[in-house]
Amino acid sequence: MDMVDFRTEPSRYKHWRLHVDGRVATLAMDVREDGGLRPGYELKLNSYDLGVDVELYDAVQRLRFEHPEVGAIVLASAKERVFCAGANIRMLGRSSHGWKVNFCKFTNETRNAIEEASAESGQTWVCAVNGPCAGGGYELALACHRIVMADDGNTSVALPEVPLLAVLPGTGGLTRLVDKRRVRRDRADYFCTLEEGIKGKRAVEWNLVDEVVPRSKLEETARRRAAEFAARSDRPADGRGVALTPLERTVTGDRIAYRWVTCALDRRRGIAEITVAAPAAAPPADPAGAQAQGAAFWPLALARELDDLILHLRTNEDDLGLWVLKTTGTVDAVEAHDRFLEEHAGHWLVREIRLYLRRTFKRLDVTSRSLFALIEPGSCFAGTLLELALAADRSYMLDGVRKGDGAPPATLKLTAVNFGAYPMPNGLSRLASRFLAEPGRVDDLKGRVGHDLDAAAAGEAGLVTFTPDDIDWDDEVRIALEARAAFSPDALTGMEASLRFGGPETIETKIFGRLSAWQNWIFQRPNAVGDKGALQVYGTGQRAEFDRRRV
Amino acid sequence: MDMVDFRTEPSRYKHWRLHVDGRVATLAMDVREDGGLRPGYELKLNSYDLGVDVELYDAVQRLRFEHPEVGAIVLASAKERVFCAGANIRMLGRSSHGWKVNFCKFTNETRNAIEEASAESGQTWVCAVNGPCAGGGYELALACHRIVMADDGNTSVALPEVPLLAVLPGTGGLTRLVDKRRVRRDRADYFCTLEEGIKGKRAVEWNLVDEVVPRSKLEETARRRAAEFAARSDRPADGRGVALTPLERTVTGDRIAYRWVTCALDRRRGIAEITVAAPAAAPPADPAGAQAQGAAFWPLALARELDDLILHLRTNEDDLGLWVLKTTGTVDAVEAHDRFLEEHAGHWLVREIRLYLRRTFKRLDVTSRSLFALIEPGSCFAGTLLELALAADRSYMLDGVRKGDGAPPATLKLTAVNFGAYPMPNGLSRLASRFLAEPGRVDDLKGRVGHDLDAAAAGEAGLVTFTPDDIDWDDEVRIALEARAAFSPDALTGMEASLRFGGPETIETKIFGRLSAWQNWIFQRPNAVGDKGALQVYGTGQRAEFDRRRV
Repeated sequence: MDMVDFRTEPSRYKHWRLHVDGRVATLAMDVREDGGLRPGYELKLNSYDLGVDVELYDAVQRLRFEHPEVGAIVLASAKERVFCAGANIRMLGRSSHGWKVNFCKFTNETRNAIEEASAESGQTWVCAVNGPCAGGGYELALACHRIVMADDGNTSVALPEVPLLAVLPGTGGLTRLVDKRRVRRDRADYFCTLEEGIKGKRAVEWNLVDEVVPRSKLEETARRRAAEFAARSDRPADGRGVALTPLERTVTGDRIAYRWVTCALDRRRGIAEITVAAPAAAPPADPAGAQAQGAAFWPLALARELDDLILHLRTNEDDLGLWVLKTTGTVDAVEAHDRFLEEHAGHWLVREIRLYLRRTFKRLDVTSRSLFALIEPGSCFAGTLLELALAADRSYMLDGVRKGDGAPPATLKLTAVNFGAYPMPNGLSRLASRFLAEPGRVDDLKGRVGHDLDAAAAGEAGLVTFTPDDIDWDDEVRIALEARAAFSPDALTGMEASLRFGGPETIETKIFGRLSAWQNWIFQRPNAVGDKGALQVYGTGQRAEFDRRRV
Repeated sequence: MDMVDFRTEPSRYKHWRLHVDGRVATLAMDVREDGGLRPGYELKLNSYDLGVDVELYDAVQRLRFEHPEVGAIVLASAKERVFCAGANIRMLGRSSHGWKVNFCKFTNETRNAIEEASAESGQTWVCAVNGPCAGGGYELALACHRIVMADDGNTSVALPEVPLLAVLPGTGGLTRLVDKRRVRRDRADYFCTLEEGIKGKRAVEWNLVDEVVPRSKLEETARRRAAEFAARSDRPADGRGVALTPLERTVTGDRIAYRWVTCALDRRRGIAEITVAAPAAAPPADPAGAQAQGAAFWPLALARELDDLILHLRTNEDDLGLWVLKTTGTVDAVEAHDRFLEEHAGHWLVREIRLYLRRTFKRLDVTSRSLFALIEPGSCFAGTLLELALAADRSYMLDGVRKGDGAPPATLKLTAVNFGAYPMPNGLSRLASRFLAEPGRVDDLKGRVGHDLDAAAAGEAGLVTFTPDDIDWDDEVRIALEARAAFSPDALTGMEASLRFGGPETIETKIFGRLSAWQNWIFQRPNAVGDKGALQVYGTGQRAEFDRRRV
């Protein structure tokens, strides 16, 4: 099967129309029926597949970087009679288990990014619902800050997955219903069993949508709401955007190379070795300088490259179950860039870059691959790049020098960004998550910002798992990698998903932990995916047959 | 297959030795190899099956009710060379998916009850670990308030499920590691991949146990710690216990009857109709009177009967996917009992009864069955019994009288217990969970304690889902029941587990939601349960073969 490429741009969109009009943009869904990513299904009624969502993700990104002037977005349907029917059911029925799960993960991340834009980036999303808005369609609406719905006989919101398909809404619907919109649980129960959904006043009364207006006023109302939000946005109305120029990626045999990120695929051992390089030069003097560098500005380039690599590996290389994270380069340059990111955190572009890095590191947190960091002489685990080691399931740091190698011993360096710039999905910094048992340690570590921490100091500070010396390193690391590769991939996925998120839960962790885990379970059950399962017989006229036993 | 009976008593224990010595009791695990609940496996090395856990549960209950003088319990192994090897793997390998899942749920609830005893009931559990303590064995230790471990070459704690069996620890181990004991996540990652576990000082340093002592001092140290906890317990050293006399249950055809609880099994429709009766008389004047009534005291009898019925239906009647909850009797008597429970909440026995009711209602919350409450003329949804309706996924209340029926219209009544006596696993009262969107409503409802709320008032107050009148009732309820019974049982399980727990998460909700959902997923994956899956080939000398693709 062809590899999926996540790189696109508006001129290549098949399914969306992006229109920017001053402070308010409109993103209209207009899915091409014959535009599916794979053959074998038609994307009717604005239903979507991964290809549609790749474009949506791209639009979300470009609005943030290329359009500083946009303070609100109206999400709408360009079809006259339907808003969105959700994920394409034929596509789901034909997909492997792994594809379905990965598809849901990516779509979830995009919806989280939409919420983050409203909450943190001064770009508020307003959804204008005309016509049936079902399943993934309503989940897209739920990700918006405000939902305006047409009050006509044809328009309703629905989560019909349970009655229709014997699966769950897969992109956060159940969680957002009770935790974001706080719909009363018995009403949510009823709503989620209704194929036809709920319309009009009752949808407002139950808080399924924020307001209903006559069909003729829908567009106008949504735009007015958007304009109100845009007027309160702190984004610069006269700002100049940064073009997200085509991302260069070279694939040569089992090597993938971007400018700062490279990846070696070891298929025999099931390992992807990812190496991230520090910047080659000091940061510009001010945000105008960063803006001038545009997509080449190191922190932004890093986020884009790492983001693309994560998505590529997840989707196209599912038999590489262990990602080994390495870094290289000069600590000073990372420190200087981190100082820049802290000093100018209030500038719209710097804020966007920090949020993009945060989203990218979050992708690591929810990636169903084992993550090991190897910290060796010549590495550069400082500040922003130290997050890679902190995101890892475990880390090995070589204590001292390598025999016959001139490189000085590896050190770690904390910078201010490690203390809050990149929270995990649970809302805590990786340091706070790491030291749940001793929160005071995080404060102590603030006193060590800027210090070189060698293996002994890093071990003592609790920042690394193991610190073998040169004599033990090769064997210990080799054995650890081989052991990891030998375990059941499924068991590791469940284990990692459970251990990575101690402490508080958020809507995000509930979606990736609780809801996704249940959905993954159901995605394997014969009642959904068996020969007579609901997902398989959908559209054939046959009735699904269920094993009635409760588990 | 024979039905599982959850009723037992110490004289019938096969696997445990309970010894009470003043303020400290010892519960020693001594599993009989040939004492399995089902044929086909031997319970070697203190491994357990459901039968072993049924006895453990009984012991936990009896310690609380029959032994007010006991302020601490030492949990130990009666085997010289092993603490506990966890759930029996052969048993798991032979069990159906549903059996495994239900088994884990029950064992989880018992471990939660052990924690609750330490936290709320003045009975602190201390674990004395001698010999290997692996998997479910260590999870049992994790449920104790303090873990003392022998420091010898033979003794270690381990969670070897991932490397050995390709499944997860099934009774809260991963969650308790990072959320209760707050073991650093990278150490937890390493620990959970070690077949042989961790022993001695490192186990203390990593907070896997609280202390290690020489093997010769283990028993003495554990008893000393227990005596210290017992000395701080508020339980009455000279109190007289309440004997949990044999629970009478009559099964006649498709009817199960206890004294206050009855259940009609409608196998054709897949419905269990549960009716709970209010007490027949006023409560005694004081706790001494309740003590004199003993197990016949209505709130205690109610808890025991409902508890047994829930466990029975879950385990033995898995094709009844919808439980319809009804009540009958006199509101005044429930109100009076609730007042009694509030007034004497500080008395050890009343506290125990309240906690038992709380645990029993919590069982409903995590039961994988749809719960509908029907509130009709003649019903008695007041206070403690109102919790049944609040625990339901939805409720129907008949508005007005039934034609040709002399019974007055149904009413609901709030009592003080609805505002905190019976928190859900998420730590909130069912009212607070219900009104997450409008917390103020809960305070408003305090003003309505003691008022008769008819259907209009109950609907307006948000306490019921639908209020059809006599003309619509039969059709509306029938259609709702039939529709529910027609949906995929798996999809409903995932949906209900997601909608029932809005708001905060706790260790309990993480275990039942996140961890159990992942485990259930893994319990279906070929890597665990396929012909060459790790759970199947365990002990055969064959190596498991894994599909290496990550999902």
